[in-house]
Amino acid sequence: MAGRKKLNVGMVGYGFMGRTHSNAFGKVNRFFDLDYEPVLKAVCGRDKEKVESFAKTWNYQSSETDWRKLVERSDIDLVDIAAPNDTHAEIAVAAAAAGKMVMCEKPLGRNAAESAKMTEAVERAKVPNMVWYNYRRVPAVTLAKQLIDEGRLGRIYHYRAKFLQDWTISKDLPQGGTGLWRLDAGVAGSGVTGDLLAHCIDTALWLNGGIDKVTAMTETFVKERMHNLTGKVEPVGIDDASLFLARFANGSLASFEATRYARGHKALYTFEINGEHASIFWDLHDLHRLQYFDHRDQGIVRGWRSLHITDGDHPYMAHWWVPGLQIGYEHTFVHQVADFLDGLASGKAAAPTFQDALATDRVTDAVLRSAKNGKWEQP
Amino acid sequence: MAGRKKLNVGMVGYGFMGRTHSNAFGKVNRFFDLDYEPVLKAVCGRDKEKVESFAKTWNYQSSETDWRKLVERSDIDLVDIAAPNDTHAEIAVAAAAAGKMVMCEKPLGRNAAESAKMTEAVERAKVPNMVWYNYRRVPAVTLAKQLIDEGRLGRIYHYRAKFLQDWTISKDLPQGGTGLWRLDAGVAGSGVTGDLLAHCIDTALWLNGGIDKVTAMTETFVKERMHNLTGKVEPVGIDDASLFLARFANGSLASFEATRYARGHKALYTFEINGEHASIFWDLHDLHRLQYFDHRDQGIVRGWRSLHITDGDHPYMAHWWVPGLQIGYEHTFVHQVADFLDGLASGKAAAPTFQDALATDRVTDAVLRSAKNGKWEQP
Amino acid sequence: MAGRKKLNVGMVGYGFMGRTHSNAFGKVNRFFDLDYEPVLKAVCGRDKEKVESFAKTWNYQSSETDWRKLVERSDIDLVDIAAPNDTHAEIAVAAAAAGKMVMCEKPLGRNAAESAKMTEAVERAKVPNMVWYNYRRVPAVTLAKQLIDEGRLGRIYHYRAKFLQDWTISKDLPQGGTGLWRLDAGVAGSGVTGDLLAHCIDTALWLNGGIDKVTAMTETFVKERMHNLTGKVEPVGIDDASLFLARFANGSLASFEATRYARGHKALYTFEINGEHASIFWDLHDLHRLQYFDHRDQGIVRGWRSLHITDGDHPYMAHWWVPGLQIGYEHTFVHQVADFLDGLASGKAAAPTFQDALATDRVTDAVLRSAKNGKWEQP
Amino acid sequence: MAGRKKLNVGMVGYGFMGRTHSNAFGKVNRFFDLDYEPVLKAVCGRDKEKVESFAKTWNYQSSETDWRKLVERSDIDLVDIAAPNDTHAEIAVAAAAAGKMVMCEKPLGRNAAESAKMTEAVERAKVPNMVWYNYRRVPAVTLAKQLIDEGRLGRIYHYRAKFLQDWTISKDLPQGGTGLWRLDAGVAGSGVTGDLLAHCIDTALWLNGGIDKVTAMTETFVKERMHNLTGKVEPVGIDDASLFLARFANGSLASFEATRYARGHKALYTFEINGEHASIFWDLHDLHRLQYFDHRDQGIVRGWRSLHITDGDHPYMAHWWVPGLQIGYEHTFVHQVADFLDGLASGKAAAPTFQDALATDRVTDAVLRSAKNGKWEQP
Repeated sequence: MAGRKKLNVGMVGYGFMGRTHSNAFGKVNRFFDLDYEPVLKAVCGRDKEKVESFAKTWNYQSSETDWRKLVERSDIDLVDIAAPNDTHAEIAVAAAAAGKMVMCEKPLGRNAAESAKMTEAVERAKVPNMVWYNYRRVPAVTLAKQLIDEGRLGRIYHYRAKFLQDWTISKDLPQGGTGLWRLDAGVAGSGVTGDLLAHCIDTALWLNGGIDKVTAMTETFVKERMHNLTGKVEPVGIDDASLFLARFANGSLASFEATRYARGHKALYTFEINGEHASIFWDLHDLHRLQYFDHRDQGIVRGWRSLHITDGDHPYMAHWWVPGLQIGYEHTFVHQVADFLDGLASGKAAAPTFQDALATDRVTDAVLRSAKNGKWEQP
Repeated sequence: MAGRKKLNVGMVGYGFMGRTHSNAFGKVNRFFDLDYEPVLKAVCGRDKEKVESFAKTWNYQSSETDWRKLVERSDIDLVDIAAPNDTHAEIAVAAAAAGKMVMCEKPLGRNAAESAKMTEAVERAKVPNMVWYNYRRVPAVTLAKQLIDEGRLGRIYHYRAKFLQDWTISKDLPQGGTGLWRLDAGVAGSGVTGDLLAHCIDTALWLNGGIDKVTAMTETFVKERMHNLTGKVEPVGIDDASLFLARFANGSLASFEATRYARGHKALYTFEINGEHASIFWDLHDLHRLQYFDHRDQGIVRGWRSLHITDGDHPYMAHWWVPGLQIGYEHTFVHQVADFLDGLASGKAAAPTFQDALATDRVTDAVLRSAKNGKWEQP
Repeated sequence: MAGRKKLNVGMVGYGFMGRTHSNAFGKVNRFFDLDYEPVLKAVCGRDKEKVESFAKTWNYQSSETDWRKLVERSDIDLVDIAAPNDTHAEIAVAAAAAGKMVMCEKPLGRNAAESAKMTEAVERAKVPNMVWYNYRRVPAVTLAKQLIDEGRLGRIYHYRAKFLQDWTISKDLPQGGTGLWRLDAGVAGSGVTGDLLAHCIDTALWLNGGIDKVTAMTETFVKERMHNLTGKVEPVGIDDASLFLARFANGSLASFEATRYARGHKALYTFEINGEHASIFWDLHDLHRLQYFDHRDQGIVRGWRSLHITDGDHPYMAHWWVPGLQIGYEHTFVHQVADFLDGLASGKAAAPTFQDALATDRVTDAVLRSAKNGKWEQP
Repeated sequence: MAGRKKLNVGMVGYGFMGRTHSNAFGKVNRFFDLDYEPVLKAVCGRDKEKVESFAKTWNYQSSETDWRKLVERSDIDLVDIAAPNDTHAEIAVAAAAAGKMVMCEKPLGRNAAESAKMTEAVERAKVPNMVWYNYRRVPAVTLAKQLIDEGRLGRIYHYRAKFLQDWTISKDLPQGGTGLWRLDAGVAGSGVTGDLLAHCIDTALWLNGGIDKVTAMTETFVKERMHNLTGKVEPVGIDDASLFLARFANGSLASFEATRYARGHKALYTFEINGEHASIFWDLHDLHRLQYFDHRDQGIVRGWRSLHITDGDHPYMAHWWVPGLQIGYEHTFVHQVADFLDGLASGKAAAPTFQDALATDRVTDAVLRSAKNGKWEQP
């Protein structure tokens, strides 16, 4: 441990995601034995007072109010982007050009075109890069990947995923500005498609391979909202709900849905995959469980197994507490940092890279195209 | 009770559905106080020995081997059709022409064209008619309808339904003949679309109103199967899986899916409806429960309520046992007969009538068209 | 089937249990292929009008108002006792003396002394006899028995059972008379101990063997209630709640509880049994499921399995519908009749016999003694 | 924040609990805005190499190998005891005598006599003190307390709690030494009674008030195990399972159970409380949920509500992420530190104090006495 290499982190953004990333960088070496140790060198945000307060709370050594300065600092090894979507491309391209490693909150860009530029930039600069699709690192989801890779499911017939929230149902909710930029199409790029559906797609591409084509439908239920930055009632440009059917390259059929208008669900991301021999179901509201059905079990005692993913032989869990004691949402970010640092040590990039995230954005673009033109579209 | 009017029933078919209907006719007057009493006059089937055995078991007074004879018998008031789909239209039209009341197992016809003829026939003859979409009569589902009709959900945003089975995954399963006619496109009309999806659509039209348009996808995973009647390996004409997205007339977005390739599910029919104020979820595998979420509950104790639908004030339940004691699948058929008989007494037809079932078949036809041409289709 | 032997049934009682028994006798031959066929010969009740109405509804050929006449009738083979507890002993002893087979609703007597007399009577008369502890015939519970008998659980460490209801919490509920005799100690014998706890004990003795000793606690939360028969507020003599700890002969430790003051539970009978290798949990509110955990499963996919007990290879289920479609409470009585009739045919008595039920009453007596004297008691 | 007062912490122990406490001290100021800030000054353990490694991992400024030195250090404000049970009393008494604040892992002492001495010591020294019964700080459990305090449940009839594990079933598991001192009666004091049952009792006394009397039963299923420290097979002195019935001062009846022989459960701590109007159920395996039933809900939509305790208005949750995203086990320790620090600032001691924990030990002592003598015992 004495010999851990320092990795100087410069973070852009201090909102919700700034907190999850900072927590992860700060905790990772307590629980994982790694060759690298992140050092919270600087955090950057436009509001000087807020960013300094954040720096104090999270033990950053310094703060900046201009991300260009951060990117230029010679004492920064890694730029982590946790600011709103409209900042991702410019910062990532500049950081790569400056030879920094780049981590970026999802979605990568506001659309595939932006993501392609970002991907090109990090690949040209040959810098390690990663996108924070954190749900891959829920131990139950990682176990699902392991079970699929072991071939336990056999030929895959069906995949279905949904991400349901209910926080924007009120017409009185404004759009834009701090905490609400996700409702501002200019900043976010899209609505639930890039926000929630992108998570579903990232997991699906990882677990089930490529998507061949999609047919989609979107809706904006509340057409106008007060805009926080202009003070005026303005049209809402984002999609409130987005659904699509898909065919995967492996021949399986799929159904995807994301919405912020599903009363009773706060962050209900679920997926199910049905194979010839076995099926898997997972649910973010009980993220520490995985449902598994194996048809090869003896008939009279065959049933869905509720796996409590807290054992030492479950992915990541040996690093935490003892069997029976669950971890939560924030731990997925710690796992992602641990894997990224492991990737640095081994020289083998940890997924999802920018390239992987670009594939997701190509699907979300196809979804939005199909929703507009009513046709099946290829990503 | 002494004054109950006799209703002489002639049943066509003695398979799975023949049993559920017979059980319902036999039980209904034990549990419901009605003006009418079904009398099991005759059952008809092509195999003389089998139909006689069935008649003995179920206390039918007589049996027939030619449905035309049954339809012509003057001692029959009601013809109930529980034979394979390819027989529905001819029998129903003849029965109506003979002035009989007609009940028909779902789907009504093999396609909307057949159903339209059947509907025309019963309406021309002005005979009471009904289709056995039994899941409307699960007390939990009936309660869902009641809660929606009371306006508790407010504006509806989302509807999603699926019907998942796994019994045809094996390639060794043959098609056609007794017990397997549902895999024979000529007999069944379609695969899961007319079989399982039709249930989902019937419930949805009832709970959420009309469907404006759909985009669909179907698949036949096993392309060839031994045919029981020809003894040869023949192409499989049915759809093994069928998914569609839809827009309802009320503006809500929907996702539907039916398959016989979802490992781990035997008859998992579920639906969920999300409204502005409240949401409802139901699941056939625990049919005696209804999940209900009401956002108007106080915040700190707001959550999905698991309603155990066994109380006397729940639909139909005062007729059965005591609170806490569940009923099962077969009871839905008893409720359907009870409502039909009530309809005879009141003169107000009990739904779903042939007309209602025709609306469902128009949606399934649109689904199959869309799956072929890749376009959005209107029912 | 033509050759089925008729078994003429005379039923005493037409309340809740009269309905469940009548339904079972009437349905059993529709679903089970048996050598015997019950014939509903006569039903007996003190109120002439009510008993005649009941006879019509349930197709009894005749009715009686004096159980002694019923017992004396030469056209009755089997006397079934579904009247309140205080009538059981006298009727059963007389029926046995008259050479009738006897079936008796549980508990057998109001206490072990009564039960012993009844047991002695049927054994002296050598007449087939059975007590309606119907929960043994829930398919999930029967499967639990099968799994235990196969030795899957290994050495047993723990057994815990509870039966929770909430219907007597209101102080305004009277005691005594129709529908409320279970609150009248003179009629019922005891409160929840003989009513609910007796079910738990019957199942436990069946699944886990004999009980060596118990320490118990009871309580009557509402001390006085209006008595329906006297019109006066009178002391409540029954126990509202009854809990005990026990040691089984096999060395396992147990906890039992029954109450009518557990808000939120209508008939929540649950049991769990923990063995060296496997554990089983069951719950009456979802009676069609069995939870099974097997430690011999591979570690990473080890979890509680939710078995949906609707498959053809599950106990009794081949007689009903198709996989995925659940049965309910009433079916347990049908199974009990089927097993009784099978026992007649095979000459091997179906359990639980009077002798078996006496063993249960010895435990409930020990529980009540211990609750009084504060000491460990042996049954 | 700039003005936060430093609180210098000296920790004794570096095992499982040493990690949970260290994590809590390190995280608390990132998530809670507090007047005090713990500084990890020193950690103490007998193995020099291990304690130094632990100190590095967790950022302790120094380490000690003799707890007496730690207690004497003038730069330590608070001594936190996370070492095995047999060290608690001596360290706590010395720390209090040295004027240090004292936090102690549960159970307080190995028996009530030890706990009484410890309590006397901290009260004599008038030093802030607290025992780590962390489950009080699960947000769902804290919410349960709040709902009870608001009087929502009305008169309480029943309380039942159990803590089920299965990790000691194998006979090959040795006793004693690192990681296994809980099986060594000399070190642990008792088996599951002081380990698991103590958690159940602490919560129960907090939620439901004092216990008047108990009747208990314990068992040691595996009588001899290899002892790691002696290398010999030696008698097992601890209780493997412990059950008791109780009467609370408020008149409610209770059932408690703890075991390490319940196959299928790793840390299944559950409690349920039934009141006149409402009931509550909680389960450590899904600690982020609370089940709540309120009889005052309208009848047709009355059911158990599954509360997903992730909203900002739920206890502690505003400090973490966003609605829908769950926290885990470790957060309960962070909450406990936050409350302790708040107590320092406000001058109002945060519970459970040593005095509170002594009350729990008096119950566990009564349980062990009753299990021996077969009589009802008073705590």
